[in-house]
Amino acid sequence: MIKNLARQTRTFSKMASKIVPNKTFTGNTGKDVWSLTNEAAAVAAKNPKNKGREIINLGQGFFSYSPPEFAIKEAQKALDVPLTNQYAPTKGRPSLISSLQKLYSPIYNTELKPENIQVTTGANEGILSCLVGLLNPGDEVIVFEPFFDQYISNIQIPGGKVVYVPLHPPKDLETRVTEGTEWTIDYEELRAAITPKTKALILNTPHNPIGKVFTKEELLKVGNICVENGIAIISDEVYENLYFTKEFTRIATLSPEISQITLTIGSAGKSFAATGWRIGWVISLNPDLLKFASMAHTRICFSTPSPLQEACANAITIAMDNGYYAKMRDEYIKKFEIFTSVFDELGLPYTKPEGTYFVLVDFSKVKIPEDYPFPDDLKSKAKDFRISYWLINELGVVAIPPTEFYIPEHEKAAENLLRFAVCKSDDYLQKAVDRLRLLKQYL
Amino acid sequence: MIKNLARQTRTFSKMASKIVPNKTFTGNTGKDVWSLTNEAAAVAAKNPKNKGREIINLGQGFFSYSPPEFAIKEAQKALDVPLTNQYAPTKGRPSLISSLQKLYSPIYNTELKPENIQVTTGANEGILSCLVGLLNPGDEVIVFEPFFDQYISNIQIPGGKVVYVPLHPPKDLETRVTEGTEWTIDYEELRAAITPKTKALILNTPHNPIGKVFTKEELLKVGNICVENGIAIISDEVYENLYFTKEFTRIATLSPEISQITLTIGSAGKSFAATGWRIGWVISLNPDLLKFASMAHTRICFSTPSPLQEACANAITIAMDNGYYAKMRDEYIKKFEIFTSVFDELGLPYTKPEGTYFVLVDFSKVKIPEDYPFPDDLKSKAKDFRISYWLINELGVVAIPPTEFYIPEHEKAAENLLRFAVCKSDDYLQKAVDRLRLLKQYL
Repeated sequence: MIKNLARQTRTFSKMASKIVPNKTFTGNTGKDVWSLTNEAAAVAAKNPKNKGREIINLGQGFFSYSPPEFAIKEAQKALDVPLTNQYAPTKGRPSLISSLQKLYSPIYNTELKPENIQVTTGANEGILSCLVGLLNPGDEVIVFEPFFDQYISNIQIPGGKVVYVPLHPPKDLETRVTEGTEWTIDYEELRAAITPKTKALILNTPHNPIGKVFTKEELLKVGNICVENGIAIISDEVYENLYFTKEFTRIATLSPEISQITLTIGSAGKSFAATGWRIGWVISLNPDLLKFASMAHTRICFSTPSPLQEACANAITIAMDNGYYAKMRDEYIKKFEIFTSVFDELGLPYTKPEGTYFVLVDFSKVKIPEDYPFPDDLKSKAKDFRISYWLINELGVVAIPPTEFYIPEHEKAAENLLRFAVCKSDDYLQKAVDRLRLLKQYL
Repeated sequence: MIKNLARQTRTFSKMASKIVPNKTFTGNTGKDVWSLTNEAAAVAAKNPKNKGREIINLGQGFFSYSPPEFAIKEAQKALDVPLTNQYAPTKGRPSLISSLQKLYSPIYNTELKPENIQVTTGANEGILSCLVGLLNPGDEVIVFEPFFDQYISNIQIPGGKVVYVPLHPPKDLETRVTEGTEWTIDYEELRAAITPKTKALILNTPHNPIGKVFTKEELLKVGNICVENGIAIISDEVYENLYFTKEFTRIATLSPEISQITLTIGSAGKSFAATGWRIGWVISLNPDLLKFASMAHTRICFSTPSPLQEACANAITIAMDNGYYAKMRDEYIKKFEIFTSVFDELGLPYTKPEGTYFVLVDFSKVKIPEDYPFPDDLKSKAKDFRISYWLINELGVVAIPPTEFYIPEHEKAAENLLRFAVCKSDDYLQKAVDRLRLLKQYL
């Protein structure tokens, strides 16, 4: 053993630097949105303006409250069973697969079998498993823009190439409250993006960050284009229990042909306010397609945390019985009412949330001094990063700049927007409203 | 919604088959060792010979008993804290990072900082994160053979190429009890395997399936070869608390140069008999190397189950205080004594376990009828698959055929061996001994 290794080793950094890491990661040296907003919040806490008042965090989509008591109790009980602490089968615990069969069979209007279901270590790893299962290097994957940022690396890890197709925003976004349906797909643009190398398309409904719930008509058009071209659909439906429209359509239910090319992603973390449990799943009516996601999952994570799977299995059964999902939706309608009231009051336009727990608000009308002391890190970023920084520093409210969900060429479309997460207690949202009311003096 | 989707969709399989999945998975259509042994166990349970007696499973390395009471209690307590159920930081919960600093600083003889540690979703995902963080497509990774099978796909997912270097077995393995040190590396062979594309080498000590604990001399030679050639070392030390030799040497502690190129993998699942919790970590004295594993982990799993991280944080603190690790080692010395006694009695040679919870036993002396009714699946497999099938069917004891850990060209080296896992209760091991004593009639 050698003494004070750390100090002695500084001189050897040159030797270690012969190791050239993955270009995906070395090519991207800028700080990500999560680091930047966390750093801004740390600086803001020391700003005299925020003295004596709490920093209100509506940035990352974590719940400020606990999972339901019944889910917690089931997790605690599961830990007491010795074998539940050991490897789960790589497909998932039979109890969770059985609960998911019961939950989704009526929705898909067919008796789901265990081979239609794969449990994954969170929805994120579910999407990665689909992509690793399907992609060969050089294959292309279509994503609608704005996109959830994890999709991009998940496509790149197995050597895939991202092809972006825009969701076109309403033309007068900055002047009025708009609807999710006004964010539109240009189907000719979508067709033009398809090449012989297109392997898959990622769909996200309800959509983060827009809050749009895709309509049946939209989904049918996208689905048929994929069917015609033999493109797999990865439908990220993690906000499936948070839609406020009359209905929520799942693309896999629209035709037998579409069902056969679709892998649908779900999340216990989102449905049970337990983002730290990392339990998700992939469902497909085509077991021959799903099996490749299963094989990839076995190699990526081997198996998914067993006691938390058991907890979710039982929590789903209880939730189907006690009206939990409907109650959750009602609670979120109220949360959005509380929160958007301040923007109605101030006359700041936003996209009416049809789903998810996010709302996009337009800050064009807010006057932010151009000579505000912004940190250097933000100079290369779009305007919304500076709006976000200003809001944190001046008002102590954290929101996410959504150009992070765009490629640089298209970020103009979102440069005046901020994304707020309302997955917080009603009291906390009321505090946010009171604080945001201070924006009045900057209009 | 459409009626009975499953039945209607059968005709559309042709259309869906336009989607060509990842070649890594389509190329490998044979059943894996875990499926084959599980199927054999199911068949064996119906064999009249096994009527009225339990099938004894010493195949997969899961614990037949519970994690320690103190770890379970900490997990149950963690679930009661609302925010502990939400996303952990992608680096890991500060409490777990702090416990790992306290645990490993004395071992590395330097004050570890948070930037030396990355928490991962099990050790498997830790190894994958290192590889995804480091490899560019076409990069080569050296693995010693026999190898843990997950390494291979973990190298292939980011487009890496596996290069095999044999651990040479003792010449007269089939005649006497051998030592782990008799499985040797030919350093000229190792040097010859290195090309300009070699990015990393995976080491596993204590070694699965051999049970070998690499000596300081061996590790220093391997480490220096990697230093000379600028090759990263991924040291899989998940069995770090299960060594029965006088000392356990960690390659990262052997020289400042080696420390700077090494990523070391640990596992709470192995140390706390909780393989279903999926908590692991990567430690490196070189934060500039580790950060690429961190970036990959963020994209693969985003973050690791939070309540189980909190449980491990506290369990490690308790274990450092109550002598848990030393007690665990003593218990395993006893388990191996119980279990290997039957092979001493029968005169069946084995590799003396220096570490892990596995033992390799040589079955050359056991007479298995050549016309035994083996299933067709086994015809293309090495002889050990048939020995394993026979043992399950005739004696009701499950063990793993270790040629699964070899490439076909080299599997001769292990065709008479079986791997037994002793991570079971002493009573269960005693039952296994009583059953295996029946082998006498076949010698």
